[in-house]
Amino acid sequence: MHVLVPFDARQPKSRLADVLDDGERQTFARAMLADVLDAIEETGHEPTVLSTAQVDCRASVTVDERPLTTAVNDALDERALPVGVVMSDLALATADTLDALFGTAGDVVIAPGLGGGTNALVVRHAEFEVDYHGTSVRDHREAATAVGANLQVVDSYRLGVDIDDPTDLVEVLLHNDRTATTWLDDAGFRLETREGRATIARTGTESDGT
Amino acid sequence: MHVLVPFDARQPKSRLADVLDDGERQTFARAMLADVLDAIEETGHEPTVLSTAQVDCRASVTVDERPLTTAVNDALDERALPVGVVMSDLALATADTLDALFGTAGDVVIAPGLGGGTNALVVRHAEFEVDYHGTSVRDHREAATAVGANLQVVDSYRLGVDIDDPTDLVEVLLHNDRTATTWLDDAGFRLETREGRATIARTGTESDGT
Repeated sequence: MHVLVPFDARQPKSRLADVLDDGERQTFARAMLADVLDAIEETGHEPTVLSTAQVDCRASVTVDERPLTTAVNDALDERALPVGVVMSDLALATADTLDALFGTAGDVVIAPGLGGGTNALVVRHAEFEVDYHGTSVRDHREAATAVGANLQVVDSYRLGVDIDDPTDLVEVLLHNDRTATTWLDDAGFRLETREGRATIARTGTESDGT
Repeated sequence: MHVLVPFDARQPKSRLADVLDDGERQTFARAMLADVLDAIEETGHEPTVLSTAQVDCRASVTVDERPLTTAVNDALDERALPVGVVMSDLALATADTLDALFGTAGDVVIAPGLGGGTNALVVRHAEFEVDYHGTSVRDHREAATAVGANLQVVDSYRLGVDIDDPTDLVEVLLHNDRTATTWLDDAGFRLETREGRATIARTGTESDGT
């Protein structure tokens, strides 16, 4: 199936501003995008990046400057169903977890994310429309019911943890073994373990130009 | 199989102190415990609460005042394997997700939690010992390798999200439909939706004694 991967090429990952500067957020967001595209390609499905601006990556790119919900709904209308929608910050996603998502029967299949988001979904019902505002996992349940679509929920940690906040970087370091973790390592991020959940620390990094 | 459910009956959920007072944390922790015990019982397996002090609940209780790691390792030694260990704050756990855990083959089966924790596991190897200090999901991988135990990881959002921090209460309200959500509702907690992840708000509650 076609798999849309929405990507904000302009102001990506603004909630990481406390730990990464503008340029770093740009390159880190692209590292996560690369990992997500790799995982989708390993499943044998075909990703298309739905981006707010041109972005250099290994998949085909459709540029749409409009808000996420509008862009995704129009992209769904233009394509033969089923269509998958997988967020570009799912740095923990693997081919196995995506296969489980794509292989789950249902008119609408949802992978809930932290804080009520919809991190990934599969749409097989022509009347279903996405709405990423607010608590989308709840709204998508209601939207599926409203159009008579059968809804299934996939229970996946790797699809449920999106990388938005500084605490989420812990999850990348623990569970991603690709580009995103290499990037964080190179940028000086390390796990810190105290009581409770692990946190991140950043050590000074120098580029000495040699 | 026997399923141990460690529970801190004395100072439960201290990281919720910003939003719940001492007595509230006690009752909320017991509400989550009740939900976890219900889910385990629905799987047909037999829970035993491993508690730091006597606690009133519907399962059998073993009181052990020692630190978590010591108490769990001794309890593992005393029982015929396999033994499950499921944390008492997995308010999103359901019988289905626990069945998937208990049914996964492997000498050691782990459900990773947010921030590097080990939220649930199954032990079928006599030499494997738990260590809940630090980044336990990483340490448990190494411990399994060290004793030659085959390790499997279960990918589950419902087992991965434990309820430790105030932001986690959002997950209870969204995904738990049992005692814990009823308790939060009664205590005045509501979802707030802005940009990004949903948050919680608490409305004034009055007990008028009538």
